[in-house]
Amino acid sequence: MLHGHGDDLYLYPDIRINFSSNVYNHFSHAALFSYLSGRLEGVVNYPDPTPRQLEQELAGEMGLTPSQVMVTNGATEAIYLVAQTWRDSRSSILVPTFSEYADACRMQGHDVRFIRSLTQLDDAPSHLCWLCNPNNPTGQVFDKEILLNAIKSHADVLFVIDASYAVFTRQPLLTAAEAVLMPNVLLLHSMTKEFAIPGLRLGYLTGASALLHRIARQRMPWSVNRLAQDAGSYLIRHRSDYRLPLDTLLAERQRMATQLQQLGLTTWPSDTHILLCRLPNGMASTLKEHLARHYKYLIRDASNFQGLDASCFRIAVQTPQENDALLHAIALFLDDSKVR
Amino acid sequence: MLHGHGDDLYLYPDIRINFSSNVYNHFSHAALFSYLSGRLEGVVNYPDPTPRQLEQELAGEMGLTPSQVMVTNGATEAIYLVAQTWRDSRSSILVPTFSEYADACRMQGHDVRFIRSLTQLDDAPSHLCWLCNPNNPTGQVFDKEILLNAIKSHADVLFVIDASYAVFTRQPLLTAAEAVLMPNVLLLHSMTKEFAIPGLRLGYLTGASALLHRIARQRMPWSVNRLAQDAGSYLIRHRSDYRLPLDTLLAERQRMATQLQQLGLTTWPSDTHILLCRLPNGMASTLKEHLARHYKYLIRDASNFQGLDASCFRIAVQTPQENDALLHAIALFLDDSKVR
Repeated sequence: MLHGHGDDLYLYPDIRINFSSNVYNHFSHAALFSYLSGRLEGVVNYPDPTPRQLEQELAGEMGLTPSQVMVTNGATEAIYLVAQTWRDSRSSILVPTFSEYADACRMQGHDVRFIRSLTQLDDAPSHLCWLCNPNNPTGQVFDKEILLNAIKSHADVLFVIDASYAVFTRQPLLTAAEAVLMPNVLLLHSMTKEFAIPGLRLGYLTGASALLHRIARQRMPWSVNRLAQDAGSYLIRHRSDYRLPLDTLLAERQRMATQLQQLGLTTWPSDTHILLCRLPNGMASTLKEHLARHYKYLIRDASNFQGLDASCFRIAVQTPQENDALLHAIALFLDDSKVR
Repeated sequence: MLHGHGDDLYLYPDIRINFSSNVYNHFSHAALFSYLSGRLEGVVNYPDPTPRQLEQELAGEMGLTPSQVMVTNGATEAIYLVAQTWRDSRSSILVPTFSEYADACRMQGHDVRFIRSLTQLDDAPSHLCWLCNPNNPTGQVFDKEILLNAIKSHADVLFVIDASYAVFTRQPLLTAAEAVLMPNVLLLHSMTKEFAIPGLRLGYLTGASALLHRIARQRMPWSVNRLAQDAGSYLIRHRSDYRLPLDTLLAERQRMATQLQQLGLTTWPSDTHILLCRLPNGMASTLKEHLARHYKYLIRDASNFQGLDASCFRIAVQTPQENDALLHAIALFLDDSKVR
């Protein structure tokens, strides 16, 4: 772990509205927690060294074979495992994006290059190409046809595609069923994001069996704790209880973008509930501390994303009322800044 | 993960007495589970990327500074992190022992050498020396003076000492407070073993700050899930509820050793509740399947420990009544084998 992380709610114990995490905060987990309460006794035994049962269940759900699915300790373990398996490689990373890809690659001796577009893959040889799709922190989705063409025309490049935010968009995405048929694509999935349980640490990889077989040799045993495995099995059986109000979220993101622009901010194009913003002047860290102190709202200072700067912050839109409250607070902050 | 693991209770769902795990099965966890039930809501937020609070608590308890403690996803993550930090090194491993050290070292490109005694460190240069103390699967403790002399006389060797079974012996051991003063010692600790919660995955490293600082650069964020962190904080506050009946366990181990020897088995010297045994003839896997099928007792086939063979098995002694039941079943098995 080389750099700081932005999900720092644990440092702000009295936050009332959390716009900082990309997780959707409004699911009711009462049934899950009730289920897990009854599973606590399971922690007195070792879990399966590899979470085979959950891998089988996920494979069944996606129409894959179990050898095409690998459950990990959050998508984070998947990132580090991929970087480790292809250690000392040359990696191109599409930015701005989540800093963990670069951290993991550098830790494993990769020669890291930041690129702004897939066309830059032609400029220099790469062994791996990392992209987040939908992207964090922009929320933007890569055009599927352009992505497929890049994958086909760079057969010697392994595309590591972080699909953690897949449930937050209506744009067409490369599916796991498509990815496993390609010899040079790995998809990273986050149950953390989909089901809003980041504290449990649960993710998975999908890809061709040959790729996952190679990664499996780098895997440590028992990396996924027993309650996380149990929660995963429960959640895929109860997926219908976790339906995002996606139309509302996307409409709210559009409304927020328009209103923030009217306040003088720049916003990035997004296809999800995530909105990356740039202040007209001043530092995002100042706005963040102001909102936390005076309103107990938390936003994400996005200055530590490669390719961004100190004026950038990210929000994940919440309910219309909560979003209005944030807009109001930002407007007042900007007025105050002008006066001073 | 290169080799199979022995803790395979998950493959035997109807076992009545588990002698196979080194965890003590007779603690009451009711209060812990009640506490964790009330903490489930915490999983909707990200944990601290590194478990700093728990590290501070553990440091306070041991009289260390937080920079001398690193909490990990079980002692297993600690093993893999150390192997990764000193990757491509030359490692000597004292055998017979837990296979994970060799697995982790090979995964990280180490040149692995198995040694039977610390004196063999003089035979060839090593960067790292791995030992388990008390040892798994023998239960034996290295003489503290001999170990200290080896550490002092090999200042260029990093001693990685797995102290997971420290609570199961009365023999003097190198303490964390002693180890942090030495520039070439790391201690691995397992809350899994101490508190019998292997499903939660919780361990930690102690050592000089300079060593842990180097390892921290290889660490992935969020590797310890939130409930495991919460459980750790609870358990060290309630350590007095988890007192092992150590005198009884040690006396039972001695009794079992004597009685198994009378049945014709060989047993290894042990300073803990663990007993490594060798059948006079036949395979440990046959005995294991027989006991599981006919009695629903589970023992540990120890044939996959480096330096052992197919006749070896390991037990962790349980209550006197349970131990008697196992002795009786083994005696009948041996009689049957003779008749056939």
